Amino acid sequence: MKVAVMGYGTVGSGVVEVIADNQELIAKRIGEAVEVKYILDIREFPGDRFEDKIVHDVNLIMDDPEVGVVCEVMGGVGVAYQFTKMALERGKSVCTSNKELVAKHGPELLQVAAANHCSYLFEASVGGGIPIIRPLNNALTAEKIEMITGILNGTTNYILTKMEREGADFADVLKEAQEKGYAERNPEADVEGHDACRKISILSSLMTGKTVNSEKVYTEGITKVTASDFVYAKAMGRSIKLLGMSCDQGDEVQVMVAPSMISNQNPLYMVSDVFNAILVRGNMLGDSMYYGRGAGKLPTASAVVADVIDCVKNAGKNIPCLWSPEEAKIADIAEVERKFFLRVSASGMDAVKAAFPGGQVITVEGREDAGYVTASVKEKEFAAKCETLGDVVLSKIRMGE
Amino acid sequence: MKVAVMGYGTVGSGVVEVIADNQELIAKRIGEAVEVKYILDIREFPGDRFEDKIVHDVNLIMDDPEVGVVCEVMGGVGVAYQFTKMALERGKSVCTSNKELVAKHGPELLQVAAANHCSYLFEASVGGGIPIIRPLNNALTAEKIEMITGILNGTTNYILTKMEREGADFADVLKEAQEKGYAERNPEADVEGHDACRKISILSSLMTGKTVNSEKVYTEGITKVTASDFVYAKAMGRSIKLLGMSCDQGDEVQVMVAPSMISNQNPLYMVSDVFNAILVRGNMLGDSMYYGRGAGKLPTASAVVADVIDCVKNAGKNIPCLWSPEEAKIADIAEVERKFFLRVSASGMDAVKAAFPGGQVITVEGREDAGYVTASVKEKEFAAKCETLGDVVLSKIRMGE
Repeated sequence: MKVAVMGYGTVGSGVVEVIADNQELIAKRIGEAVEVKYILDIREFPGDRFEDKIVHDVNLIMDDPEVGVVCEVMGGVGVAYQFTKMALERGKSVCTSNKELVAKHGPELLQVAAANHCSYLFEASVGGGIPIIRPLNNALTAEKIEMITGILNGTTNYILTKMEREGADFADVLKEAQEKGYAERNPEADVEGHDACRKISILSSLMTGKTVNSEKVYTEGITKVTASDFVYAKAMGRSIKLLGMSCDQGDEVQVMVAPSMISNQNPLYMVSDVFNAILVRGNMLGDSMYYGRGAGKLPTASAVVADVIDCVKNAGKNIPCLWSPEEAKIADIAEVERKFFLRVSASGMDAVKAAFPGGQVITVEGREDAGYVTASVKEKEFAAKCETLGDVVLSKIRMGE
Repeated sequence: MKVAVMGYGTVGSGVVEVIADNQELIAKRIGEAVEVKYILDIREFPGDRFEDKIVHDVNLIMDDPEVGVVCEVMGGVGVAYQFTKMALERGKSVCTSNKELVAKHGPELLQVAAANHCSYLFEASVGGGIPIIRPLNNALTAEKIEMITGILNGTTNYILTKMEREGADFADVLKEAQEKGYAERNPEADVEGHDACRKISILSSLMTGKTVNSEKVYTEGITKVTASDFVYAKAMGRSIKLLGMSCDQGDEVQVMVAPSMISNQNPLYMVSDVFNAILVRGNMLGDSMYYGRGAGKLPTASAVVADVIDCVKNAGKNIPCLWSPEEAKIADIAEVERKFFLRVSASGMDAVKAAFPGGQVITVEGREDAGYVTASVKEKEFAAKCETLGDVVLSKIRMGE
């Protein structure tokens, strides 16, 4: 079986490398050799180990009947969408790491694949190398999945871990992360939570079988989290993590991305640095968790190649995926009740207590501010009261499990 | 598709329950209804919800062409082996939670299944409801798996967690666990590590593709771990866990079951109570971890039913599994080098330091004994020197990552 790789960037070169370096092992596992025949990129790569496979014309791939699987690792939702659809329409399976495209056009592309007896697989789009799409589609098939909560973005988890361990502030850690290449020069997609939002939307779609539109998901990043907040988190035996949270409530799905103060009894508590983890709650199994490297060249490539192998094993057949184009109804976050953590200036505590009765004051020696954990309160009520309280509220973070 | 369940004990009744309660969901996922037609048990169950399905004659199942999948949840390696083989020979797929049988006859039964165009699946045999067999067989297919380390037994993890949190001693916690039903009246299989041994042998077989004979695996239980050892573990930021450890070294596989002092940076550190977790190291992906309930009626049943669903989806076909009857060469543990923790009586520290130069003394205020962590030393050398040191060595536990 011949494979084409579209996009020779970080993940693309990883895919070619994994297929070449684990070739013997893969052939043994599936009883058939898998080989990359074309690498599509607009650039030239003189001196590259796989220079002879580089092509610039997508039609070479589309017109070659030997090519049964195409890896789309270009990114974006323009040309990538066009090429993916073209390949599927010709009965070539497509494996991708492109979460933006999966979140935006997943159900449509799955339908095109099914109609053409080939597959559209996207294990690498969430959690990098962590097998999480497969558990939802193939392993937890006897389960009604009720809740998915995940640390889905390695960059923000790295930043939060550094802030926690070193007491450093967000801007400084971000700058350092950018210098080291752990964060992009243009970090919005990560730090504002958009990347995590796409991923939780994909997982929520698989949970409900309908389409959770990522553009309608409430999303809050980590830019307002401060080193001071971690002082109070620690005092409570907690940590602050950027979570994608999704809960199937039957008629509607409650889904959001936001920083959350989680307890040290939560298995996500110990997920540090660039690691990702996804906690899945099923009606029979209870909690299970999937942990690993959520990004990086080889981990992500390994997930793409695992999908390639599935396509080879199922050549000429569609691997079904229950994700219909029908939009899932997203619950109104304003109506959700929960506890909140507030960091409050010394002068403001009385007003905060009056606004949110029945909460708990957290003090840390030597500090001028103080912490306050509210009783359960509706999001909209919380927001309105914080508005009234004004400047005395220094930070606000949702409390998690 | 009709299913037969052999053995109506805890897991068996869970399987029947999961299939009945998630029936609609399962039918939607696979486009076909799955229904239990027979429950085989020697006992009667008057008044049971599924009383009408109880049968006592295995031939009813074997001779019924409607039955395509059989769940073997009887346990043991006698009748269970005989019935499993009989079903496979008639082209009926078998799904099991019986780790003893899988560890002992896995490769043979896989061959019988392949020869008869049906499948032998055993997701529930390791890690209860945690999908771990599937990642190894279907998700991490692009990976060369180099190492597997797991907390594979819920009873011992529960006991160790209680000892750690309450400072209680093994015997007391075991007694309490037995009263609560968390440990069996005859607890040897758990506390002596035999159960974990079978599971790490199964995982090692899947890692190497050969048969790792569980009877040849060095196995040490938790009966010698004391509350005092946890005091020193805590002082070092560590915990004590019963680990199944396996490492593919190409020509041979290094595998053992033993208590290990692991650091709080190890993702297995936070796995408490009855939870299990398996850490898998691949050559591309690095570390990934699978966490969840390793035992219990519904979690284990959920894994069996996930296998049933796979069999239904692959009716008339063998789901391949790379596990040959050829025995893997097991490395001689005596030659392995590692660090050890010793708890030493006050009078013995000088002798211990002299026997194991270059180590580190750990003291805890108010205690008469002391801790010592050796430099790297071969297992056989360590054992010989401990023999010579005699009574001054109060405890010895391997240091882990």
